[in-house]
Amino acid sequence: MEPIRWENNTLYLLDQTKLPLETAWISYSNYRAVAQAIETMVVRGAPAIGVAAGYAYCLAAQAYQEAPSFAAKMKAAKERLAASRPTAVNLFWALDRMEACLTACGNMPTALSALIAEAQAIHREDVAQNKAMGQLGAEIVPPQARILTHCNAGALATGGYGTALGVIRAAFAQGKVAQVYADETRPLLQGARLTAYELMEDHIPVTLITDSMAGALMAQHKVDLVLVGCDRMAANGDFANKIGTYSLAVNAHYHGIPFYTALPSSTIDLSLPNGSCIPIEERDGGEVRTLCGIQTAPAGVEAWNPAFDVTPYKLLTGIITEKAVLYPPFQPELRRLFGSMAG
Amino acid sequence: MEPIRWENNTLYLLDQTKLPLETAWISYSNYRAVAQAIETMVVRGAPAIGVAAGYAYCLAAQAYQEAPSFAAKMKAAKERLAASRPTAVNLFWALDRMEACLTACGNMPTALSALIAEAQAIHREDVAQNKAMGQLGAEIVPPQARILTHCNAGALATGGYGTALGVIRAAFAQGKVAQVYADETRPLLQGARLTAYELMEDHIPVTLITDSMAGALMAQHKVDLVLVGCDRMAANGDFANKIGTYSLAVNAHYHGIPFYTALPSSTIDLSLPNGSCIPIEERDGGEVRTLCGIQTAPAGVEAWNPAFDVTPYKLLTGIITEKAVLYPPFQPELRRLFGSMAG
Repeated sequence: MEPIRWENNTLYLLDQTKLPLETAWISYSNYRAVAQAIETMVVRGAPAIGVAAGYAYCLAAQAYQEAPSFAAKMKAAKERLAASRPTAVNLFWALDRMEACLTACGNMPTALSALIAEAQAIHREDVAQNKAMGQLGAEIVPPQARILTHCNAGALATGGYGTALGVIRAAFAQGKVAQVYADETRPLLQGARLTAYELMEDHIPVTLITDSMAGALMAQHKVDLVLVGCDRMAANGDFANKIGTYSLAVNAHYHGIPFYTALPSSTIDLSLPNGSCIPIEERDGGEVRTLCGIQTAPAGVEAWNPAFDVTPYKLLTGIITEKAVLYPPFQPELRRLFGSMAG
Repeated sequence: MEPIRWENNTLYLLDQTKLPLETAWISYSNYRAVAQAIETMVVRGAPAIGVAAGYAYCLAAQAYQEAPSFAAKMKAAKERLAASRPTAVNLFWALDRMEACLTACGNMPTALSALIAEAQAIHREDVAQNKAMGQLGAEIVPPQARILTHCNAGALATGGYGTALGVIRAAFAQGKVAQVYADETRPLLQGARLTAYELMEDHIPVTLITDSMAGALMAQHKVDLVLVGCDRMAANGDFANKIGTYSLAVNAHYHGIPFYTALPSSTIDLSLPNGSCIPIEERDGGEVRTLCGIQTAPAGVEAWNPAFDVTPYKLLTGIITEKAVLYPPFQPELRRLFGSMAG
């Protein structure tokens, strides 16, 4: 299951707002439309946003091939794409990498084929990193594990395979996974719509719960491990992930349940000392007041709608990356393994 | 705002499944239909269920006035009503009280007017107890309080006025409430649909959040106090309340935020030593797979759907009742104040 395809110089995105009821692919030849697709969450998940942004950059280069002031137009395209969502760092990481490729090619329209190769490399590397962290992460999964996850950190959130769900896939292949519990993940229900769908497609046993049930599930000793994805990790291990991750981490801590996040190195932002520096996107309150266009609350009621929250490193048992599983103290380990990547 | 009316020997229930989009009253002259209304949550909230059951018992007595074996039929009616929902003890408490009234009247059809008076007394006393706990509870609310609540423990959950929302109403009248945060309370959205509606009607400032946002809100120091209702409290202070209450209590504990429950004495069940003895209703998984009738998850995915969870007494700062605000140790305080009520 891969949510992003590049074919015949066109980008195809699986419309994740329509899943699981409808499997619809949308084709893109305009980078501005891709920026909108990121904003409206046709494509979502930190690694997948990075991959899509790489291809969108290629679409811009294609469109501007004949344009005067090609370099200036590419700069503007990068800015437009970077403005689509603020929290996941993979977006900026991928755009910086694409821009570096363009610079290396002399900022010329002739760079197009190199840019496409770079975007495809980002995509290919993301899947390879997912699989590497799946293998490494599977080692921390106990036999007969009952694993709780939040939001969707699966194939649909990445170039393919998944971060947290990649670990679950690898552990399941080793016969270690007895049960996955998926938080539905209000307001946009990525857990109900995407995680449940992905796991059912792979015949991995999944039970859906509302976000509010996770604590009660832990109290009944039905959770051995919590595994989530990540949208941006600061240098000390604090990390932003889908809203509700923090509440889950507090509950896991209270119940003494191991709590891991899985992420590729492109999600690590060593330029930020801690989580308080991570910009948190606030989305329209209408997402809380409605579902699928159905009003669920009084019209005009105030609503708070942060898309992410920050979980402090001290609530984390370990960090699963494509290079290693990291344990506290995280800061020196992150710097040792990923320090050369700091901007 | 009162969700239950008795007029011309007919019971009228405000259909809480339709709020806030529609204000529809349903009339009942058949006790079995009231049992169904409790099951389908046309009327919900522990105290309101008790009040409705009292009136439903009167409807049975009316229907069976001319029947042979009146007493046996009333016994069967009580059993049918008692089978409607298992967790809230107010249901059983109200039915026992109605039966005691019937017994005192010699188990004869001539008891009807006494039964109606008893049901009206249950209703009237519930509102009076709500107002008493509102006044007592308001004393623990700090100035400029930002209060988080879960589900609906308001006028709509009671004979009128509310338990947790009654405390908020009384504190607001004293100028102490700066902001209420209402958890939307999946799966049935009583917070979004009912609490937001009630508070807006009373011009009390309310902001809606998804259940998963409560932890992040606490981490941002935006919550001074958590106030919830209760469906059944055991002798040691453990209590069942709407699913998600426990997760909230764990988060409040972690953040050092006072956590209170407000309940009338009819919600206290001293016959149960602790919360593990409280029967927890599991409802159909379809409620988790859908939102307001819209399918939100893959058809056929497993779902867990406990309607309540149990919060242990050690996570409670205090218990607000109509007689006093109780502090630990709860067990002797509960016995001292409510011991004479034990069955």
